[in-house]
Amino acid sequence: MFKQFPQNKQLVPFDSSFRISEAPALSNHPDDDECKQQLTAVTEEISRLQRIFHADKHYALLLIFQALDAGGKDSTIRKVFLDIDPAGFRVVSFKAPTTRERGHDFLWRTSQHLPKRGKIAIFNRSYYEEVLTVKVHPEFLSGQNLPETTDTKNLWQHRYESIRAHELHLARNGTVILKFWLNVSEQEQCKRLLARLDKPHKNWKFDINDITERQFRPEHQRTYETCLNETSRPWAPWYAIPADNKPYMRLAVAGIIRDTLAKLPLRYPNIDSAVLNKLRAELKDH
Amino acid sequence: MFKQFPQNKQLVPFDSSFRISEAPALSNHPDDDECKQQLTAVTEEISRLQRIFHADKHYALLLIFQALDAGGKDSTIRKVFLDIDPAGFRVVSFKAPTTRERGHDFLWRTSQHLPKRGKIAIFNRSYYEEVLTVKVHPEFLSGQNLPETTDTKNLWQHRYESIRAHELHLARNGTVILKFWLNVSEQEQCKRLLARLDKPHKNWKFDINDITERQFRPEHQRTYETCLNETSRPWAPWYAIPADNKPYMRLAVAGIIRDTLAKLPLRYPNIDSAVLNKLRAELKDH
Repeated sequence: MFKQFPQNKQLVPFDSSFRISEAPALSNHPDDDECKQQLTAVTEEISRLQRIFHADKHYALLLIFQALDAGGKDSTIRKVFLDIDPAGFRVVSFKAPTTRERGHDFLWRTSQHLPKRGKIAIFNRSYYEEVLTVKVHPEFLSGQNLPETTDTKNLWQHRYESIRAHELHLARNGTVILKFWLNVSEQEQCKRLLARLDKPHKNWKFDINDITERQFRPEHQRTYETCLNETSRPWAPWYAIPADNKPYMRLAVAGIIRDTLAKLPLRYPNIDSAVLNKLRAELKDH
Repeated sequence: MFKQFPQNKQLVPFDSSFRISEAPALSNHPDDDECKQQLTAVTEEISRLQRIFHADKHYALLLIFQALDAGGKDSTIRKVFLDIDPAGFRVVSFKAPTTRERGHDFLWRTSQHLPKRGKIAIFNRSYYEEVLTVKVHPEFLSGQNLPETTDTKNLWQHRYESIRAHELHLARNGTVILKFWLNVSEQEQCKRLLARLDKPHKNWKFDINDITERQFRPEHQRTYETCLNETSRPWAPWYAIPADNKPYMRLAVAGIIRDTLAKLPLRYPNIDSAVLNKLRAELKDH
């Protein structure tokens, strides 16, 4: 049932053998112009496939993007979906949870925004924050009012288990799930944060916390490695995307989405030709 | 962690040994007046406990009611919650799913209405319809647009699995779950349906489908038995409530809710006495 996912070299294997130290932030790739040209061709194909996907209405598509600050989530989403029918997809960005959201179980707030069949939802950050940021900063847990009977020793294992079960349930009910970790190097991240200071049209994205957060990089990397190993599964695979070169990163993400859509058994619904002829006749009468 | 549930004789065991043929629709019980008197005492205690539960905000309470038509869901909910602070709970009745709801996975529509910590949600019917009514009438599946890659051989097992995982996730995150099957006999059901025809203030509840549906009673009973065995678990137990006598049924349900709340480690949040004194002083100044 779950064989349709592209088995490319960026796929995080399902056997916990993924090592972040071996995941490249920069890989051999065509030059920027070549990447951009290819991206245009790929997004045109996504656009064509999305129209069948939308009419077919048997599958939903959930795309999850996770990365450190300045990893390139926003711009990748923008460039890959630039030419796709906006009626067919929705981008949802998840910031720090509100008081109301923290009153619920940690899958509640994203569940509201899951795509229905025929639709694409793009999560810019997601419930994975609960086993990434919150694990690096466990002090956030105190704001979650967890019951005192909570099994804190197994808290993270239970959260991975919840996520795996949630995604398996969604996949079995028609939601195709692709998860992208945009892997940016320390140097490139630093360069991009500096650009936010220097370029007036990027100033607004600058957040002083992004600087203090950089000291936690080793913890973040360890946490990503564990998380990707615990939750990359045939029904909801992770892809570790080299993110230091933006044109290549976008092409890599778009290629995986295109390949996934292309492998689904999509078709325009068949309307009986007798029905069509009857409707044609009725319309002619007016 | 999940020891707080009342182990009474109506608890459906967790080892698949439940037999519907041995579950009484009528059991030995005090006379009606005695039941009503006891119910008043029990609901008063629920009311007191609910106020601490509401202030404590570490737990949510999800109550699920399932029964055949005229099983007594509406009136039981009404009588048990008559004196409870309406700000602390909400009743959600689930009818046939809408087109939009059918576009999503089968847990989506109820997820919107899950209670947050400190709150009680009462589901009058629920996602269990998806393994009860839909299993008895599998033709409803065709309206769900399931992908053609769906593993139809294991469809019901996968649905039970989804439900168990969903409830385990909720329980681990602070939602206490109690599920009531109101077990009404064929004779009593018939009597109640007739009353809907005869009493003007009950006419509106009458639905012609309730009559045709009665021929499926054996299938419904078999489906309930399987469902209760598959999904009664320490973290989300089912109770099989004898439903032929309404005063007793209400008392039985209320007793289980009271016992459950009483076993939770609830308390009013502690406010430091120095803080209280400071506030007192400030208020006096005005």
